Amino acid sequence: MVKIMYVGFGIVSQGLAEIILEAHSILPTLKKTEIQTVAILDTMKGSKMDANGINMQEILANAQKGDYSLLTENILDVPKAIQEVQADIIIEASFTDIKTGQPAISHIEAALHSGKHVVTTNKGPFAVAYEEIFKLAKERNKTVAIEGTVISGTPIINVLNTGLLGAQITAVSGIMNGTSNYILTEMESGMSYEKALSQAQELGYAEADPTSDVEGLDTLAKVLILGNVVFNTQLLQEEIEVNGISKITLADIKEATSNNMRYKLIGQVWKDSQGKVQGAVRPKLVPMEDSLYGISGATNALKITSSILGDTTIIGAGAGKTETGFALYNDIISIVNG
Amino acid sequence: MVKIMYVGFGIVSQGLAEIILEAHSILPTLKKTEIQTVAILDTMKGSKMDANGINMQEILANAQKGDYSLLTENILDVPKAIQEVQADIIIEASFTDIKTGQPAISHIEAALHSGKHVVTTNKGPFAVAYEEIFKLAKERNKTVAIEGTVISGTPIINVLNTGLLGAQITAVSGIMNGTSNYILTEMESGMSYEKALSQAQELGYAEADPTSDVEGLDTLAKVLILGNVVFNTQLLQEEIEVNGISKITLADIKEATSNNMRYKLIGQVWKDSQGKVQGAVRPKLVPMEDSLYGISGATNALKITSSILGDTTIIGAGAGKTETGFALYNDIISIVNG
Repeated sequence: MVKIMYVGFGIVSQGLAEIILEAHSILPTLKKTEIQTVAILDTMKGSKMDANGINMQEILANAQKGDYSLLTENILDVPKAIQEVQADIIIEASFTDIKTGQPAISHIEAALHSGKHVVTTNKGPFAVAYEEIFKLAKERNKTVAIEGTVISGTPIINVLNTGLLGAQITAVSGIMNGTSNYILTEMESGMSYEKALSQAQELGYAEADPTSDVEGLDTLAKVLILGNVVFNTQLLQEEIEVNGISKITLADIKEATSNNMRYKLIGQVWKDSQGKVQGAVRPKLVPMEDSLYGISGATNALKITSSILGDTTIIGAGAGKTETGFALYNDIISIVNG
Repeated sequence: MVKIMYVGFGIVSQGLAEIILEAHSILPTLKKTEIQTVAILDTMKGSKMDANGINMQEILANAQKGDYSLLTENILDVPKAIQEVQADIIIEASFTDIKTGQPAISHIEAALHSGKHVVTTNKGPFAVAYEEIFKLAKERNKTVAIEGTVISGTPIINVLNTGLLGAQITAVSGIMNGTSNYILTEMESGMSYEKALSQAQELGYAEADPTSDVEGLDTLAKVLILGNVVFNTQLLQEEIEVNGISKITLADIKEATSNNMRYKLIGQVWKDSQGKVQGAVRPKLVPMEDSLYGISGATNALKITSSILGDTTIIGAGAGKTETGFALYNDIISIVNG
């Protein structure tokens, strides 16, 4: 039996809860472990705790109607509650702030200090405090699993940490923001930037405030995480050149197409000729023979270049409730399997 | 310190030996483990054993000149030698026979019976005796690692076994033979099948006898392995429809191109509507929006379809000395890391 608690009960947490429910609360681990939810903490929607297990079917059925009245408790000191609840793993899915990483950092620290593993899709903490968090996790002998922070619909972190271990990676570059890639793709068929953006919003790809997506800040957070995962280096946000797609015109796109090129918002980290790790986020002209050329719409992709294997490219869904929920689910399975 | 022995010392084993040498015989594992070669067994080139470690630099320098005179011993009972040598891991890289799986199966059994782990790129044993081998490995509490059996230049097996665990995979299809994909790509620029084949042979992609590549038998072996890895089912060779690319004409290719399609030799396994696992190898017309459409030349790719993530595609080098050597290297690292 593994006991989990949700910190933040938005779309991502609900995606995970649905996957667990569909699997009848049994993890496909070696020993078919039962999984039980003992707490939901959400400062906006409300909270609920039950050491004997919360009836998640009921909670989810109500959540689908936007009804959170079953979350009756009003808990504001979340770190304290995280410490006090008896659970094995916290699901950290609170609000992402890539400038400060808070309040998620305090949630993660509270979990580690009270002997809990952490699984999360929250990019904020790892964009600013990757090293500190993993140092603390090591001291406490607990796992912090972050598969969902970079391209949730693909096992990128898993591949970088295990499958390509020893391949001598020299660069990683990718299309890691579905909203901007969707806009660029639509502009290729002649749609204006403004129209494509509002369409992305209608489809639920882009937030009401799309700045983070179209100006490259979301991609920046992923670049900062990749710098740590791939090169073990904390890049500084202020040292990274970040350009979004909002200045790309239809004329630019047309010219690219006529040259058999496509504009893509590319996030990348690489080792320069002096061995220094660099990062950048910018729109780039991608030629036809590049494995990132064919990535259309809201799809994401990461190209990993290594001395031994050349290019390995992984393509998949970039986000979405189920995909992001799955990243958390897979991380939980890994923790339970040891 | 981990001690390894090579069984078969052809191009694949030499690729691994070079990677190890370049890493100064230190594995990038958590504890920076030293790796030592204690035996090379090759019934054609000769054998050598040294419990204190063989000087691999010397062996490889000579091998580059086609000189194997340092392999002075003539060992014909390979299973017996495998049992007797004190080693932690055997590198099984002998001749592949997908009809019988021998002599590799006897090598793997000898290793497991004498308490050794196995890493291999040899498809033969797993095309016919996957279940028996993994049953024996489990009984003996040893690992049999097979990353190199399917698309050596990418971490496919790793992704299927861990990164996508729980994603409810329903189908896997891919371009898993570089030679045939190279030929099909060249034919698109108007080259005849015969000319493209001989060019593939000149470039070292195709063997002197290219039957296994162009008639789909190499892909069949990978399909049989995927059936086991993905669906835990031993498909039978005789029940799988296998068609190669040798009957595709330039006219077929031209027609496909004019319809914005490309012929690809696709190996696939899937669950049919009755839940029965099926396999097939055949040339298929792939439309532009398919993630396998853009795979040209000797590149390989696998598209994994799951209920939760939709399509995840992994693209990379298909084979080659270094890539195949790396698959073995990565498997050794995983074993040492536990």
